[in-house]
Amino acid sequence: MSDRRTAILEAAATVIARRGVRGLRVEELAAEAGVSKALIYYHFEDRTDLLRRTLAFVNNRAERYTAEQAAAGQPATGAPAGPLRRLEQALLLELQDLPHVRENSTAWGELRASAVFDPELRGELALASVIWVREVADQLGEVRPTAPESALTASAERLTALLEGLSARWLSGILTLADARTRMREAIGVEVAHLDRLD
Amino acid sequence: MSDRRTAILEAAATVIARRGVRGLRVEELAAEAGVSKALIYYHFEDRTDLLRRTLAFVNNRAERYTAEQAAAGQPATGAPAGPLRRLEQALLLELQDLPHVRENSTAWGELRASAVFDPELRGELALASVIWVREVADQLGEVRPTAPESALTASAERLTALLEGLSARWLSGILTLADARTRMREAIGVEVAHLDRLD
Repeated sequence: MSDRRTAILEAAATVIARRGVRGLRVEELAAEAGVSKALIYYHFEDRTDLLRRTLAFVNNRAERYTAEQAAAGQPATGAPAGPLRRLEQALLLELQDLPHVRENSTAWGELRASAVFDPELRGELALASVIWVREVADQLGEVRPTAPESALTASAERLTALLEGLSARWLSGILTLADARTRMREAIGVEVAHLDRLD
Repeated sequence: MSDRRTAILEAAATVIARRGVRGLRVEELAAEAGVSKALIYYHFEDRTDLLRRTLAFVNNRAERYTAEQAAAGQPATGAPAGPLRRLEQALLLELQDLPHVRENSTAWGELRASAVFDPELRGELALASVIWVREVADQLGEVRPTAPESALTASAERLTALLEGLSARWLSGILTLADARTRMREAIGVEVAHLDRLD
């Protein structure tokens, strides 16, 4: 992907986080990316194309910081973290006071909110959500290998939806980051104990 | 409260759900409410006052439909529903395909999203959230009277945040209403079982 194209997508995530999808204007996007409006029209077919690719960019960036931090989070002794610790780390990465985490979560929330009245992103949003639930279900399966597949998926769907709910409360100043992280950590324990009872 | 004032608040909830807080314009609000712009300026001090009162209106309306449906949900035999059934009913009321439920949840999400960059509604949002968590904690306390207070509050905070997360997925077409309701019902069971273990 060209540097200019990436710069436009980065800028689109920033502007959407700041103004919402409805507030995204090509003038502000061009200024934020430091490119001409013409270059935006050159790289993206239309508004829908730009929004779809921004959604993909936001998702890829979340996966990238998840993978990087998971690698960085390996204990210094060289002993690999257990599956429960890895699951906790992966989910808690979304509750960190870092500019790119705040921006990614805010932009995702705005892109999702746009789908309430406008169906054009629904397919991509649903797919991204299914992939995320699948990943968390797989990680839960490593924690409790004998739990039924359907129970793992249901737990993963609850944990990821809870994470989105807690993240929205934290980002809007309703809940402190520490409380959001505590509730999330507890929820993982509660769901793992639930899987134990099903065994 | 005057009928005109209520009509303006109803219209504000509708327009905020449709356009977001940033997209709320006094022209569209006046047209939606069927009043003059001057009447809006007469009833509300400024934009912040209008937003604060719309947030209160949205919260009161949610409490009203919760109370009405809870009353309507009493079994025909006259036997009162048990505390677990009442808790389920109260939480599942937010996951119903009714215009006022969709509009209320969407408007609440937009008001909350506006607090990410603009702190003016944070106090009201946090207070509304604390009150809701308190109510759900009290209902959980009726289900499990010997559970510690702090555990009831933590469970209530998780259940209400999960409900917001599931509701956002349903409203944006990521999750079916049936799946959202199933996940919510399961989560209540999972949290009650968790409280049992703490007893």
